[in-house]
Amino acid sequence: MPDTIDRATTALLVIDLQRDFLEADGYAARAGLDIAPLQAVVPNVARLLAAARAAGLVVVHTREANAPDLSDVPPAFVDASRRTGAAVGSDGPLGRLLIRGEPGSAIAAAVAPVPGEIAIDKPGFSAFEGTALGAMLTARGIRTLILCGVTTEVCVTSTLRTAIDRGYRCITVDDACASGNASLHAAALSMIDVEGGVFGRRATTDAVCAALAAG
Amino acid sequence: MPDTIDRATTALLVIDLQRDFLEADGYAARAGLDIAPLQAVVPNVARLLAAARAAGLVVVHTREANAPDLSDVPPAFVDASRRTGAAVGSDGPLGRLLIRGEPGSAIAAAVAPVPGEIAIDKPGFSAFEGTALGAMLTARGIRTLILCGVTTEVCVTSTLRTAIDRGYRCITVDDACASGNASLHAAALSMIDVEGGVFGRRATTDAVCAALAAG
Repeated sequence: MPDTIDRATTALLVIDLQRDFLEADGYAARAGLDIAPLQAVVPNVARLLAAARAAGLVVVHTREANAPDLSDVPPAFVDASRRTGAAVGSDGPLGRLLIRGEPGSAIAAAVAPVPGEIAIDKPGFSAFEGTALGAMLTARGIRTLILCGVTTEVCVTSTLRTAIDRGYRCITVDDACASGNASLHAAALSMIDVEGGVFGRRATTDAVCAALAAG
Repeated sequence: MPDTIDRATTALLVIDLQRDFLEADGYAARAGLDIAPLQAVVPNVARLLAAARAAGLVVVHTREANAPDLSDVPPAFVDASRRTGAAVGSDGPLGRLLIRGEPGSAIAAAVAPVPGEIAIDKPGFSAFEGTALGAMLTARGIRTLILCGVTTEVCVTSTLRTAIDRGYRCITVDDACASGNASLHAAALSMIDVEGGVFGRRATTDAVCAALAAG
């Protein structure tokens, strides 16, 4: 990763660290994912948030949260979520799974947005699809994204792929991303490095925090 | 995969089977990729093309081919390609690497488009970004995509991710996709199946050809 980070043109993007992915009653656990690795990444994301806030970075949080009438859910995900027994929109202890405004879509307290930070609901997987994220970043002069969150091989990867194609430079924070599947987590990170690093650079939480502190 | 394929609403999407990825003098070999697995997939793609043509499917071919002045190349890929010694736009025996209209961007003869098929140049990785692909598919009433080509973990995956978020149902053909890296090829395919199959379904060339023949 670069030694320094341009505070004026870089944003921290925290993906889907919501109760539906982190709690035993949420979507992910009901879909059969191992949520322990997802929970374990929260402290590193909290460190990134603290460093980004101290450096004055733009911070964006996303939630995988679909329209209550399911009209914006990708059809492939409607099908998939029915197969696992954790259908999008079905009822659970945290409200309807992965639906906007339900308790399960709330970002976990330890990494919750503070005033002035952006929080967006996204249908599907890439945070750029079906949202105003691109326009929000353009309006703020953002050219580089620091990505973290869950899950590495699904929403982090889909968001990273779109960001790269849309002209952003990207830094994915290995130990601030997590998946229920260790081998797919590792593979998703390895894919960033192919052909010289087609999907940008990777870094550790320590390295990003140090670079942000260096200014 | 489904037992039948709706011929009227399904398209075959063949990704980047161009000389730059398949020949020893092209981009991929110069970037250090093992091109043997890429070459090896051509016969299966040719079988899919024959079956799709016999069934009257819409067929779209893509080429990873950037503007001659490099103005549309994702910055991350400009950086990456310089690291491997196969810089986008640099000169080679097949012309400038990954540039529109150069010999290296031509689709391999065995899987070349025939009259009536769409061929598009794409900058970057997802075939939906910076192209008219989405509009072309909408205009033709396409709702399902059959994906094949190279490389599995880069352009096939990026294109699949966008397609899913944009509402398409997708069938990725395992043995008609290829990568220079066997483990990342397998991991990219495995990612399709997570959470019940969030990125659609997988199939073999045999199964797709049989379903197309069944009508």
